[in-house]
Amino acid sequence: VFVVDPAFEAASAPLASLGLCEARLQLDARFPWLILIPRIPGARELDDLPKPERRRLLDEIVLAGQAVRSMGAALGRPVEKLNIGLIGNHTPQLHAHIVGRRRDDPAWPGPVWGVGRSVDYAEPALERVRAAAIAVLSRPA
Amino acid sequence: VFVVDPAFEAASAPLASLGLCEARLQLDARFPWLILIPRIPGARELDDLPKPERRRLLDEIVLAGQAVRSMGAALGRPVEKLNIGLIGNHTPQLHAHIVGRRRDDPAWPGPVWGVGRSVDYAEPALERVRAAAIAVLSRPA
Repeated sequence: VFVVDPAFEAASAPLASLGLCEARLQLDARFPWLILIPRIPGARELDDLPKPERRRLLDEIVLAGQAVRSMGAALGRPVEKLNIGLIGNHTPQLHAHIVGRRRDDPAWPGPVWGVGRSVDYAEPALERVRAAAIAVLSRPA
Repeated sequence: VFVVDPAFEAASAPLASLGLCEARLQLDARFPWLILIPRIPGARELDDLPKPERRRLLDEIVLAGQAVRSMGAALGRPVEKLNIGLIGNHTPQLHAHIVGRRRDDPAWPGPVWGVGRSVDYAEPALERVRAAAIAVLSRPA
């Protein structure tokens, strides 16, 4: 049976259940950032997914990228580059990070993972990014 | 017309031309590490690729992951986790990193990008990883 690893709960919040993945909002106001977790018990690596689910994950990563761009626009900070990572060194449950980057963000040009300290969203900004993300994620992938 | 960005030439060497991508060996003996560059002029983001090419990139990323595992085995350091990144903050030409990680590697558990200094391969190890990678990359994706 599939359960989201509790390690995701401290730093992210549930947003939407897509066809394959649970989509979560990373609670870090420095970057518009989504996490996708395929609902496949025991999957750790991309090739643990059967080919149709791998393709579905790819489609949902592209959709999440569009959602991240919409989140950046909602915050008045348009995304200049998407960063996509499937890493899992800390939390092995298969998941993808989709992060919107800008030349003026606090980690540019390095990657975001493990850099600096997370910053909480103010409540109105949180509602804006959540609404922006959900509007895109509600479309078919 | 497609040309590999010269920025890749300092740190990596050509390995194979796959169906979609140029596969290159990252010349850093700390990690078995491949780079895939789709031969699509002007592509910077995943959604700049038409859907069939996106799927082809995914298939070639999975194949590259198998090649990275084979490179780790050839070095006597079996890969424990694959890390996949599409970042492109320094070099915007669309490319994917496929990196083999171990708990005893010098960047664990953080990501490898921008961490520490690259270490040159000794010549026999370079030949071993190159042969291991090419043997896998010669299979159909």
